Amino acid sequence: MLRVAVAGASGYTGFELVRLLCTHPRAKLTMITSRAQKGQRIDEFYPALRAHCDLVFQDPDPVELAARAELVYTALPHQAAMDLVPQLLDRGARVIDLSADYRFIDPAVYESWYQPHKTPELLSEAVYGLPELHREAIRNARLVGNPGCYPTSVILAMAPLLKESLVEPGTIIADSKSGVSGAGRGVSLGVHFCEVQEGFKAYKVAEHRHRPEMEQELSRIAGKPVRITFTPHLVPMTRGILSTVYASLKDGVDLSRVEQAFRSFYQGAPFVRLCGSKDLPTTLQVRGSNYCDLGWRVDEPTRRIIVVSVIDNLTRGASGQAVCNMNLMFGFPENLGLDFPPWQP
Amino acid sequence: MLRVAVAGASGYTGFELVRLLCTHPRAKLTMITSRAQKGQRIDEFYPALRAHCDLVFQDPDPVELAARAELVYTALPHQAAMDLVPQLLDRGARVIDLSADYRFIDPAVYESWYQPHKTPELLSEAVYGLPELHREAIRNARLVGNPGCYPTSVILAMAPLLKESLVEPGTIIADSKSGVSGAGRGVSLGVHFCEVQEGFKAYKVAEHRHRPEMEQELSRIAGKPVRITFTPHLVPMTRGILSTVYASLKDGVDLSRVEQAFRSFYQGAPFVRLCGSKDLPTTLQVRGSNYCDLGWRVDEPTRRIIVVSVIDNLTRGASGQAVCNMNLMFGFPENLGLDFPPWQP
Amino acid sequence: MLRVAVAGASGYTGFELVRLLCTHPRAKLTMITSRAQKGQRIDEFYPALRAHCDLVFQDPDPVELAARAELVYTALPHQAAMDLVPQLLDRGARVIDLSADYRFIDPAVYESWYQPHKTPELLSEAVYGLPELHREAIRNARLVGNPGCYPTSVILAMAPLLKESLVEPGTIIADSKSGVSGAGRGVSLGVHFCEVQEGFKAYKVAEHRHRPEMEQELSRIAGKPVRITFTPHLVPMTRGILSTVYASLKDGVDLSRVEQAFRSFYQGAPFVRLCGSKDLPTTLQVRGSNYCDLGWRVDEPTRRIIVVSVIDNLTRGASGQAVCNMNLMFGFPENLGLDFPPWQP
Amino acid sequence: MLRVAVAGASGYTGFELVRLLCTHPRAKLTMITSRAQKGQRIDEFYPALRAHCDLVFQDPDPVELAARAELVYTALPHQAAMDLVPQLLDRGARVIDLSADYRFIDPAVYESWYQPHKTPELLSEAVYGLPELHREAIRNARLVGNPGCYPTSVILAMAPLLKESLVEPGTIIADSKSGVSGAGRGVSLGVHFCEVQEGFKAYKVAEHRHRPEMEQELSRIAGKPVRITFTPHLVPMTRGILSTVYASLKDGVDLSRVEQAFRSFYQGAPFVRLCGSKDLPTTLQVRGSNYCDLGWRVDEPTRRIIVVSVIDNLTRGASGQAVCNMNLMFGFPENLGLDFPPWQP
Repeated sequence: MLRVAVAGASGYTGFELVRLLCTHPRAKLTMITSRAQKGQRIDEFYPALRAHCDLVFQDPDPVELAARAELVYTALPHQAAMDLVPQLLDRGARVIDLSADYRFIDPAVYESWYQPHKTPELLSEAVYGLPELHREAIRNARLVGNPGCYPTSVILAMAPLLKESLVEPGTIIADSKSGVSGAGRGVSLGVHFCEVQEGFKAYKVAEHRHRPEMEQELSRIAGKPVRITFTPHLVPMTRGILSTVYASLKDGVDLSRVEQAFRSFYQGAPFVRLCGSKDLPTTLQVRGSNYCDLGWRVDEPTRRIIVVSVIDNLTRGASGQAVCNMNLMFGFPENLGLDFPPWQP
Repeated sequence: MLRVAVAGASGYTGFELVRLLCTHPRAKLTMITSRAQKGQRIDEFYPALRAHCDLVFQDPDPVELAARAELVYTALPHQAAMDLVPQLLDRGARVIDLSADYRFIDPAVYESWYQPHKTPELLSEAVYGLPELHREAIRNARLVGNPGCYPTSVILAMAPLLKESLVEPGTIIADSKSGVSGAGRGVSLGVHFCEVQEGFKAYKVAEHRHRPEMEQELSRIAGKPVRITFTPHLVPMTRGILSTVYASLKDGVDLSRVEQAFRSFYQGAPFVRLCGSKDLPTTLQVRGSNYCDLGWRVDEPTRRIIVVSVIDNLTRGASGQAVCNMNLMFGFPENLGLDFPPWQP
Repeated sequence: MLRVAVAGASGYTGFELVRLLCTHPRAKLTMITSRAQKGQRIDEFYPALRAHCDLVFQDPDPVELAARAELVYTALPHQAAMDLVPQLLDRGARVIDLSADYRFIDPAVYESWYQPHKTPELLSEAVYGLPELHREAIRNARLVGNPGCYPTSVILAMAPLLKESLVEPGTIIADSKSGVSGAGRGVSLGVHFCEVQEGFKAYKVAEHRHRPEMEQELSRIAGKPVRITFTPHLVPMTRGILSTVYASLKDGVDLSRVEQAFRSFYQGAPFVRLCGSKDLPTTLQVRGSNYCDLGWRVDEPTRRIIVVSVIDNLTRGASGQAVCNMNLMFGFPENLGLDFPPWQP
Repeated sequence: MLRVAVAGASGYTGFELVRLLCTHPRAKLTMITSRAQKGQRIDEFYPALRAHCDLVFQDPDPVELAARAELVYTALPHQAAMDLVPQLLDRGARVIDLSADYRFIDPAVYESWYQPHKTPELLSEAVYGLPELHREAIRNARLVGNPGCYPTSVILAMAPLLKESLVEPGTIIADSKSGVSGAGRGVSLGVHFCEVQEGFKAYKVAEHRHRPEMEQELSRIAGKPVRITFTPHLVPMTRGILSTVYASLKDGVDLSRVEQAFRSFYQGAPFVRLCGSKDLPTTLQVRGSNYCDLGWRVDEPTRRIIVVSVIDNLTRGASGQAVCNMNLMFGFPENLGLDFPPWQP
């Protein structure tokens, strides 16, 4: 059994990691940390976990973490991760970081959207942990920067089309909608039930920090700089992201060419399910799972393609993808411990 | 008191009309119809109405309707309206039709999206009942085609920009999200609570019948044909539409020019509230009211404007707008009976 | 116009007062207070209020309040009210207090559930503001203690039966369910959307502070001490309380006797609607209104009566009832400004 | 691998069986039936199942079912089950029936609440499938009547107290609240999102058919006839039942005696988790799992105990319990295939 630890296990992302690792056939969770909940048993904090995990939250001590685990998941706020990660690597642990700290190739991009980076030298080593794009690099990575939730949904929607140059890169607009768990477990008026329930809204329009992450990966696929417009929205539901992604088709590209691009790009990928152009996916059909389901339509009069991409923001958009990356890093089957059906209804 | 009737009062739109007319200071509701509920008291069908309205549903007999009411609201399915409306007009009643039957100028457009039209000659007379665009024509109209819910939200978002030619008309994309009440009170799997609750989805992508309605009005404002892409989505909430509308700004257009266009276009309009470019509106802040709240952002790297438009789909998107049209047609203040704050929370 | 002020206008209860007073035909809102929001316009804090109220939050200065208003609503936390209320009364204002501070006759009861009382001498003067029980006393009151939300729903369910001695007082169990707005607008994990949405729960079982309030009023009606069991629950919805109240019928009491008791007790009461024993009420049918709708069933095998009582917790359970009390205190019709239909759907 | 079939696999209960059986390590699903969906693949009907199950719905032919499966789950409407079950047994299959048809010992009770029974002779053989009460009998059963959802939650709440005679049987009141999935996947106004969302309600008060089922089992445990009052309510959420069960404690019974009764009764039961008298459970903490979590409080002034019992109505209240019964019948560990943590959040 692979010994694993979760640093920052008290939030939704951390909990989702614990939930998935509890039942993973090849991993054994040996340590969890949380400064705020230090000393408390996780199954008192999350009664749902009773009979499944009785670990006690500890301080995120890098020596202890590296001693107890071959792999450490860091589910910490941005900046807190980059304090811890280098120490873990130095002590021989491999790391999957769920913050934004190791997602960017270019420190300048990171720094223009976040803050100064303390370990820019690690950025060239870190692998962007989207298996469908970087499967081989992930297998050999010591440090994986686990993708953001919105970027996962948007990049998977556009990658096949940019790869085969079927759309005009300058025309991409991603209109994304997320459930509330994406905002985390912290309290604020923005997640108050009564403010959310009938209060659908857009937020951080044209200024959300997930945009440069999308642009980095889409540019790599396209082989040239891609600038997109990205608008996130908050949906009165707990889990799920649906991204509606628009782009202008190049001349001569038809529906069958589009379909062929998707089929070819995702051949053999266990966690992408193609719905084609008839049955567009809903967030419900992937809830609790690591799937990204994709459907598309062509709007003939305007020659635009509309791709609809759905994921569970906590699973595929964070912790499930992290477990998938672990599977790749340690030579397990890609879907080990993740091969269960979505939660319905 | 103006005597008014509602043909088709058993659905959500009909109920909303009854609710608003119950407390309108100048209108008296004299007759309601519903084939399905014929003979039943409306306050037995909707217990909420006890102590407010005890009318009994009747058959939609045009002779009776025209005898009892100077104004008839027809809240019937498409096609059913066009059977009834001409008979009402012939008998001297004025009509506000909430179906799509009298929204189009060109019978060919109607027929290509709906079905053959039985009274195409009335289309040239009918006025599209969006007060901010056609206030004067509505005052004198005998027949008003009350706008669809999505078109109301999208047209109001784009009208000032097209009017002053600030955006490229060919670049407009409307990504709209609606609460479930927009689907009406009829039962289907699509409105089953358990399918909706965590099941955000797109539907009728690039093929929704509200698109030609938007294009007609946007083309009139632009003075040339406008083709848009329109994607509706279903949000797990009861009321509200939020439309996120994208367009490319023309060269040299800046934020202050945009703001000026909105301020100028909506000057004196009691039911449009401008939020500017800082505080984008949410559906909650207009719930139960006739307001359309508008906010916008400019995405500088891509030179796109993003307008966020929110309405209550049953009030501004249907029955409240119809009451507003009545106010105009009969010389009442535009906001009479509609000047209450939105429902919070 | 009666000049009124709201001390503590930034929470849900305060907002609901402002909303109702905005459209009240005989009251003019002249001042609102909030320490936390001091200096901010209420329509910036609640964008829904734009075009309806542009008052600025001020400090709750009693001199200013009494100078500007003949009636002050105090929607403050327990204890804060009793600091302010005596000063308002001294300066000639009449007061409706929405906290628990002036609901109890016996200071000892208040003190055993809350904290020491600073103005116990005012308790004998204060009137418990449930119009159906104390209508005449309210008319003449200088100080009204506005009832709690749960007590309103439970007392109205049991009053007719205790008044006519149809049930065994010692057998009363009130199982109540409330929407989340009852917890107020403050942030906490308990109102986080993701914790609420599928997380129905009981709380403060057998120890909620609304129980002694119910017992006080039920004892007064019964003419002897009544002890009840009370269990509140949190429902994943925004507004509404439904109380299911159980009691054993005395020998010989049948359904028609029960019905007669309800009809007789609530004769002429504009805000109680009796549904009888067939159609039990739902929270939706009173939402946004001041109604309490009541239905009941007799469980013959066990000889228990089950009364189902629904109110909107913010309207009938707080601010609507307070406005109704104002109407009584100032000689307006009891339902003035409150005679609109509930919000549907 | 044990070959199993599901007759009636298109509803929520049937789907939940398929979901659980897909990942069960010792069972292989060989056949599913649905008259309405005959010929369709289940993963087209439920896109969530893509990559997990591609069986095609067939007619519920007993010959075919018995040939293909050693165990058949019948998830059919009442009455339809009793047409099929005898034929399956005759052909050597064992059966777990999820309808009410084989839950009752006394045909007269069944017939007074449902309809005439066609195979009353099987009732003496059928075992009531609540493992905590009838574990040994289930192991040897040929036919298991799987309990109703409400009875599961209520019986588990009261069994320890009646077993040890700690409460007065005549004082039991069960106030239960269920998510909407309990109503099934069929469409009706009662499950329309807009009617449910803010419409908490009681239904079938004092006349729900789950009451005699509770009374049968509680009477068996108490050793004498028990009559209870039972009130179900509909909660605006998808999954979960919370039952608040009241009873008067016998003289001298204190909290520690109560706790001891619960601990003793559920010793070794893998699917009951005791929360004690401090932390009462919520529906969220068992969602998607087979757990029943129990907490309790004593209301000293009235000497009543209040037990709060939560389950997932589709899992513990139906299909999970059925899989657990299969485990017992075929000698697998009781929690095989069911030992995953609940879905959070």
